[in-house]
Amino acid sequence: MTKKLITFGEVMMRLSPPGYSKFSQATSFDLVYGGGEANVAISCGYLGMKAAHVTRFPDNALGKAATQFLRKHWLGTANVIYGDDMLGKYFLEKGAVHRPSEVIYEREGSAFSLIKPEMVNWEEVLEGADWFHWTGITPAISEGAAMCCLEAIKTANKMGIKVSGDINSRKNMWKYGKTMQEVMPELVKNTDIVISSNRGIHEIFGLGELGGGFSGSAKLLMEKFPRIDKVVGKTRKSISASHQQIQGKMWTGKKFIKAETLDVTHVIDRVGTGDAFASGLIYGLLHYDNDMDALNFATAACALKHTVEGDVNMVSVENVTSLMGGNTSGKIKR
Amino acid sequence: MTKKLITFGEVMMRLSPPGYSKFSQATSFDLVYGGGEANVAISCGYLGMKAAHVTRFPDNALGKAATQFLRKHWLGTANVIYGDDMLGKYFLEKGAVHRPSEVIYEREGSAFSLIKPEMVNWEEVLEGADWFHWTGITPAISEGAAMCCLEAIKTANKMGIKVSGDINSRKNMWKYGKTMQEVMPELVKNTDIVISSNRGIHEIFGLGELGGGFSGSAKLLMEKFPRIDKVVGKTRKSISASHQQIQGKMWTGKKFIKAETLDVTHVIDRVGTGDAFASGLIYGLLHYDNDMDALNFATAACALKHTVEGDVNMVSVENVTSLMGGNTSGKIKR
Amino acid sequence: MTKKLITFGEVMMRLSPPGYSKFSQATSFDLVYGGGEANVAISCGYLGMKAAHVTRFPDNALGKAATQFLRKHWLGTANVIYGDDMLGKYFLEKGAVHRPSEVIYEREGSAFSLIKPEMVNWEEVLEGADWFHWTGITPAISEGAAMCCLEAIKTANKMGIKVSGDINSRKNMWKYGKTMQEVMPELVKNTDIVISSNRGIHEIFGLGELGGGFSGSAKLLMEKFPRIDKVVGKTRKSISASHQQIQGKMWTGKKFIKAETLDVTHVIDRVGTGDAFASGLIYGLLHYDNDMDALNFATAACALKHTVEGDVNMVSVENVTSLMGGNTSGKIKR
Amino acid sequence: MTKKLITFGEVMMRLSPPGYSKFSQATSFDLVYGGGEANVAISCGYLGMKAAHVTRFPDNALGKAATQFLRKHWLGTANVIYGDDMLGKYFLEKGAVHRPSEVIYEREGSAFSLIKPEMVNWEEVLEGADWFHWTGITPAISEGAAMCCLEAIKTANKMGIKVSGDINSRKNMWKYGKTMQEVMPELVKNTDIVISSNRGIHEIFGLGELGGGFSGSAKLLMEKFPRIDKVVGKTRKSISASHQQIQGKMWTGKKFIKAETLDVTHVIDRVGTGDAFASGLIYGLLHYDNDMDALNFATAACALKHTVEGDVNMVSVENVTSLMGGNTSGKIKR
Amino acid sequence: MTKKLITFGEVMMRLSPPGYSKFSQATSFDLVYGGGEANVAISCGYLGMKAAHVTRFPDNALGKAATQFLRKHWLGTANVIYGDDMLGKYFLEKGAVHRPSEVIYEREGSAFSLIKPEMVNWEEVLEGADWFHWTGITPAISEGAAMCCLEAIKTANKMGIKVSGDINSRKNMWKYGKTMQEVMPELVKNTDIVISSNRGIHEIFGLGELGGGFSGSAKLLMEKFPRIDKVVGKTRKSISASHQQIQGKMWTGKKFIKAETLDVTHVIDRVGTGDAFASGLIYGLLHYDNDMDALNFATAACALKHTVEGDVNMVSVENVTSLMGGNTSGKIKR
Amino acid sequence: MTKKLITFGEVMMRLSPPGYSKFSQATSFDLVYGGGEANVAISCGYLGMKAAHVTRFPDNALGKAATQFLRKHWLGTANVIYGDDMLGKYFLEKGAVHRPSEVIYEREGSAFSLIKPEMVNWEEVLEGADWFHWTGITPAISEGAAMCCLEAIKTANKMGIKVSGDINSRKNMWKYGKTMQEVMPELVKNTDIVISSNRGIHEIFGLGELGGGFSGSAKLLMEKFPRIDKVVGKTRKSISASHQQIQGKMWTGKKFIKAETLDVTHVIDRVGTGDAFASGLIYGLLHYDNDMDALNFATAACALKHTVEGDVNMVSVENVTSLMGGNTSGKIKR
Repeated sequence: MTKKLITFGEVMMRLSPPGYSKFSQATSFDLVYGGGEANVAISCGYLGMKAAHVTRFPDNALGKAATQFLRKHWLGTANVIYGDDMLGKYFLEKGAVHRPSEVIYEREGSAFSLIKPEMVNWEEVLEGADWFHWTGITPAISEGAAMCCLEAIKTANKMGIKVSGDINSRKNMWKYGKTMQEVMPELVKNTDIVISSNRGIHEIFGLGELGGGFSGSAKLLMEKFPRIDKVVGKTRKSISASHQQIQGKMWTGKKFIKAETLDVTHVIDRVGTGDAFASGLIYGLLHYDNDMDALNFATAACALKHTVEGDVNMVSVENVTSLMGGNTSGKIKR
Repeated sequence: MTKKLITFGEVMMRLSPPGYSKFSQATSFDLVYGGGEANVAISCGYLGMKAAHVTRFPDNALGKAATQFLRKHWLGTANVIYGDDMLGKYFLEKGAVHRPSEVIYEREGSAFSLIKPEMVNWEEVLEGADWFHWTGITPAISEGAAMCCLEAIKTANKMGIKVSGDINSRKNMWKYGKTMQEVMPELVKNTDIVISSNRGIHEIFGLGELGGGFSGSAKLLMEKFPRIDKVVGKTRKSISASHQQIQGKMWTGKKFIKAETLDVTHVIDRVGTGDAFASGLIYGLLHYDNDMDALNFATAACALKHTVEGDVNMVSVENVTSLMGGNTSGKIKR
Repeated sequence: MTKKLITFGEVMMRLSPPGYSKFSQATSFDLVYGGGEANVAISCGYLGMKAAHVTRFPDNALGKAATQFLRKHWLGTANVIYGDDMLGKYFLEKGAVHRPSEVIYEREGSAFSLIKPEMVNWEEVLEGADWFHWTGITPAISEGAAMCCLEAIKTANKMGIKVSGDINSRKNMWKYGKTMQEVMPELVKNTDIVISSNRGIHEIFGLGELGGGFSGSAKLLMEKFPRIDKVVGKTRKSISASHQQIQGKMWTGKKFIKAETLDVTHVIDRVGTGDAFASGLIYGLLHYDNDMDALNFATAACALKHTVEGDVNMVSVENVTSLMGGNTSGKIKR
Repeated sequence: MTKKLITFGEVMMRLSPPGYSKFSQATSFDLVYGGGEANVAISCGYLGMKAAHVTRFPDNALGKAATQFLRKHWLGTANVIYGDDMLGKYFLEKGAVHRPSEVIYEREGSAFSLIKPEMVNWEEVLEGADWFHWTGITPAISEGAAMCCLEAIKTANKMGIKVSGDINSRKNMWKYGKTMQEVMPELVKNTDIVISSNRGIHEIFGLGELGGGFSGSAKLLMEKFPRIDKVVGKTRKSISASHQQIQGKMWTGKKFIKAETLDVTHVIDRVGTGDAFASGLIYGLLHYDNDMDALNFATAACALKHTVEGDVNMVSVENVTSLMGGNTSGKIKR
Repeated sequence: MTKKLITFGEVMMRLSPPGYSKFSQATSFDLVYGGGEANVAISCGYLGMKAAHVTRFPDNALGKAATQFLRKHWLGTANVIYGDDMLGKYFLEKGAVHRPSEVIYEREGSAFSLIKPEMVNWEEVLEGADWFHWTGITPAISEGAAMCCLEAIKTANKMGIKVSGDINSRKNMWKYGKTMQEVMPELVKNTDIVISSNRGIHEIFGLGELGGGFSGSAKLLMEKFPRIDKVVGKTRKSISASHQQIQGKMWTGKKFIKAETLDVTHVIDRVGTGDAFASGLIYGLLHYDNDMDALNFATAACALKHTVEGDVNMVSVENVTSLMGGNTSGKIKR
Repeated sequence: MTKKLITFGEVMMRLSPPGYSKFSQATSFDLVYGGGEANVAISCGYLGMKAAHVTRFPDNALGKAATQFLRKHWLGTANVIYGDDMLGKYFLEKGAVHRPSEVIYEREGSAFSLIKPEMVNWEEVLEGADWFHWTGITPAISEGAAMCCLEAIKTANKMGIKVSGDINSRKNMWKYGKTMQEVMPELVKNTDIVISSNRGIHEIFGLGELGGGFSGSAKLLMEKFPRIDKVVGKTRKSISASHQQIQGKMWTGKKFIKAETLDVTHVIDRVGTGDAFASGLIYGLLHYDNDMDALNFATAACALKHTVEGDVNMVSVENVTSLMGGNTSGKIKR
């Protein structure tokens, strides 16, 4: 039966100068919407899963347009909440070669940041779901968002729904009075699959050493939070803004495995590649019976995202498995 | 000698779906910048005056791009202030015929709203200026903005610089704890030329009656604030979003005069037409020696703005005087 | 409770040169999707109703993209059918003033034309619906489409769901071996609300006289098909491609009523205005308790569609009622 | 048999800001090509005639692209000459309502201006032609162009090919040392059909009085140059840049006739409407056996051009005759 | 004297999302026209040859626009046939790196597929030609197309015109009841220059072994069809959709020769590169007196096409010979 | 204190087909402005320096628009001169891989070429400046431009302002009757920092040998012109139009130093990279106390320009120093 994923988090309006123009050159902005968790849900939708997203938008034409974007990309939006206040936004200037991309966030005071736990009935939302996914961005946004996320995780636990969390250390996002060290443990404790990095595990939980190996940190994290089943990461080598190399890695609880490195020689859009990895991992763990295949699927999905414009990975299972199978030729499909 | 105008107020990023598309149809937004006072300054610049604008932008690439927009359109930007926080924004969906345009503001907490009087040295800024212009939007934004505006007006008074104010009643903009009834009198008291409407004068100062004549209200306003030299307004007849009629009117202190009505049968962009009227009035009062010509100049400038895309009136003195002279034919200039 | 509408019919890819360019000038085509029945459903969705559409698309990326268009515009698409064959298409060159718009159809052999009654389970589809709408285009496309439409109507009858049909005479569409005179009576017989014209009633059913009055034809139609509750039409005066006048009219079974004529002086997009009328009528009949209001709502919705790009009427109930209430000024909503 | 037209004159690159943007707003220019005589030829091509154009372009990629534009629009280009020097250019900012369009020419020293009579073998070029058309712009450009034009006219005379000339008074174009009074008589003397105006006839030939009637001037012109068979003009009423009225008029040698006035309420592109009139006249005189129909055809063609973007009238005979027949409704053609 | 090429085959409308967008992201399609044989003719036109194309289009504005595309790109179109039915189409989503391009064809029942031999008078068409080129796509489309192609080849044989055929095995195109094994031998038998591959020769003619060498298959093909003078192929290495390597190869009848491999590191548009190879080969064989130069010319032309948008190779002889000569630097030409 | 740069030279309108389209495919041109010296000034402006440019434009809307471009990009334009005549232009078709970019100039008779020394008061212009920069293009344009440039240099010398000159040998630009061998020595003699190449030094001054080393030529140049302080050059390796390698080199008067080679694997826009090198060098020499850092700064600035669209390098000091420091990863800045 078709698997169903629920995600929760902010969706922002993304505004970017066309092509490789700089902010100072723009007389128009290309417009899409994106956010870590919704990106994962949409990508899973393109992989054929059912997916729905929970978020909060302003109750105006922009909030409606954002919802329509999610609906268009196959998401269920029955549980989107509307209220006052503005839509979170980010501005993206795309870089090339040695020139870095530049991102400006305008998300403070957004409709999502004002979400409160009582606005969502998680038992209803999670009914029929197989998987719930969250990221470390959500608890950083506001106390309401963090509490709402925790309730979602706990409800999923109760209902026997798998929980994955993609957590990184974005220290400077935490501005509402709590630290990530205070908030994150409670969320991670109830999570089954953690996607993180050596740095993330060190900075958030004080485990392992900066620059130490990923597998060591992963093992320590699992020891600390026994519910965790797998810790997954990826190595990214930024040869330049236009050339990236990607390799998934996983501590399965028993062993450390690594996917084949994939070489993305002509990057089209770098944003959301981590989310594509997460969506590939979720799809992989739900549809393959071995971790290696799941990890290869995640890595191939991540590599493919670099060639898709926008935040989300609009590729098919066939696209991913073809690349997993070693077909890197990109030959025309007629 | 070339006359010099100083203006003060918020400049917002304006984002609009291309052509007549609705928000829900947009995959890009056209990008310009605008704000009531800067619109007046820029329009005066295109009329050949010197003009500079004082505002506050975020200290990032977007604030720089907004500054560059002002510079490109001939404004002096030496006194733009940079600081944290976001750029005010408005979203414009252009209407047609019976379908109204729709505007969504996102200006709360903007860099400009956090301006403080001590950030501007008005004596320096106003050095060499002939005119200072403000609008009723600025004091509605924040207490800091209102105080800064008052200081500008008083400094102008001291330096013998003419002051004009374009005041309307936008009740629902006042959210910082003061009302327009409390704040506006002090500002208007020190203003020489007031642009307003019967409704504005009634709602802000409690003078005259709603629906009563403009000249009556204007007379009462002048009696209350003796510094005021002229009260100017315009009658707009909205036959539809695509067809507007405009007529300037003025209480000169002695008599009530009216310009010819101009019939704009094919509106291109309705935004900023009031600001075009104000800029035409300032130019007219500075360059003509009779009020009737100044008022006709203002009305013609206003009518022409309806045919120019964006917030600002990029027409020349020759364009305006040709229309003032009764040439409505729009014949090709080779 | 929110009312629910089901529609059935072909959805085509619409390709048009940008702006007022002619086919010979195009180096790109603007892309939307549309079809008489889906246009009605989408417009009702924007009016706040629930709506779902049944159609058949090719099982490829274009069929998916068409479905995504419907989803984005709020439609339920759970009952879209996929199969081989191509997507119906139409090419639209927009006219102006005396230059007519030009439409080229390429819909023969489309995936929809190959639909078979057994592909749809109408009892499931119509579950929970309040209204079913069809148009005279569908039975003209193919025998399968006609049979499928008839089954939908009969099922709706059985389930107590109101049925409306928008029928015109497009003789040259009927190419599969049956004539409209043979096929239409059975469909109309089971329909509650008929939208048509004097010409349509005459050419399809041989009732009334060409050029005779609408109310006479309408009365004869109702006599022939007693289930019919109302016959509705509209008078369109094409002053030019850029200037249209619209007036709804209705034979209520008891009397002949007419809406106010609305004058659309600057047409943006003429396509789908009849569908906007139908959607306004459905909304009006479901939400007002008198025919005059319903008819005025339909007329205002139709007039507004002329200002919206694409096939569908993306206006709100507030937009329509404001115009119904006589507010033709199109003033900016802030 | 299909009639064949030969034209001779400069073709310029036309660069214009998109939509109604002003020069100062442009970050791109829309690109077409045009020139009075080639516009006539292309329009006749769209009316189903054979047409070829003689001109001179720079021998580089821009000259090639200009040629390709002519070819695409059905012209024969076998006799285009290539040489050094630049492509003539004009910049067009489109006006609206009271704001005039603005044109900037950059044609001095263009490849065409350097044409020499010996570069064209007119007997070869005119072989098989039914009509040769020139305009008063060509002799104003350079002595070489004037001489080349004269030779073309004389060769046409010799070969029994009808000659039409569209002459207006553009005094400030004449910069190469000769005046229009010196050069034009010789050209007009050998011309069969003259399109001009009261002002043109007065300023060039000193005939009639400024502001006097067209028919009087026309009669005087014919008396002076007995070869002339008809003198044709049009009255244009510029209500605004967006609203024009057009009426053709003709002195047939025996009587003065006038076409119906056509009212163009929503102008799309005003440039080239005079050329559309000329092409309609040529087509009309070649295909109708009475002057009134020819004149109505010319007027309708001219009116339709106002709705077509670019310099040339891409409408069909059917479009024109439908409008001639009084069908001003612009109804969609399916 | 300038050499003249005649080609015959379907020309399709090509619609593609802008840039690297996916079908699901498109709100417009870029529009060009293309088809294997016309691509060859156009490319030869840019190389300075005369070229004309024979095809069949619908008799509507789209068929006209397609013809205009061919004319613009220097082709003779005097022998284009117009009739009912639709224009063949293909939709192209451009891939990048590991993401394959995706092509959707909609060509069944196209105007071209309904061509009949009696519609073309090949003796007239081929008058004055030096070369006739066909591809294996044409006989796969319909029996009429196959018969028409055969007649063209035979007429060319009779008139002493060289014939080249580019044949590949596209099994799933053959739907009209005949197989490629039945139809192709008769066509190839009368062809002088064959472009194919080891796989093509094996699957169509049952010669050689899959995976065997090209030169072996080529030799067998020549033995079977003695008229064949050369068999030409190319090796393409698809490192990714964005990086391709190309090498021409030829069995001259006496020996096997190979061109230098060219490395296309940043692919702009991959479509039509095979046609560019064919056009380069035709040009090369007509203008060089040794096979090696001809083959190098073909390979360089093919490599350059990867950098040109659209189906056709708009490069000059100078571009090709510079690359042939080893200048791979792409330095700016001023 | 912020350093101030003055530059002098022609600014041209740059028109280029969008993306990688060829001239023959363009239906619009992207529009920016550029010119060697202004490019240097603008780039220095983005690096935080004060900069103003002296040039001459036509006194029309295009000249105004060009000025607005300079203003927008932070330049002082108080000393721009307006007069008759046209705006210099260049057309750029962007190449890729083996396909070269193509540039067509149209600058003869431009407003700048008609500049006369008496039009500029250099003492006023140079007041407060730290640096004056010129290039070898200016003296090639016209005698007036050459004389004006010489006067600028001499005035700078007098005022103690550093002078840099970027000189190359563009023989075919010299058309006004003098040769570069006659004109250049006087200019170079008074210049402090020369940017040139082995070829340039050889062809202009007859020093060194073609193909000899840069350091040898540089030394000879310094011996001949003792005022020169440093001779700077760069090695560019054009692997293809899409892949370039850059390395700065300098003869410091005492030793020969070389920067690290930077590898630009995905070129976005190659134009103006030499000017970016010059601007980086000026910034570097003004802000670092050792030549090696200055040279590395110049090389990094040059490499970054390859990734910026248009003529000018809109990168920040932080962008350059990050690359100088070895960070080639182009990681997203949030």
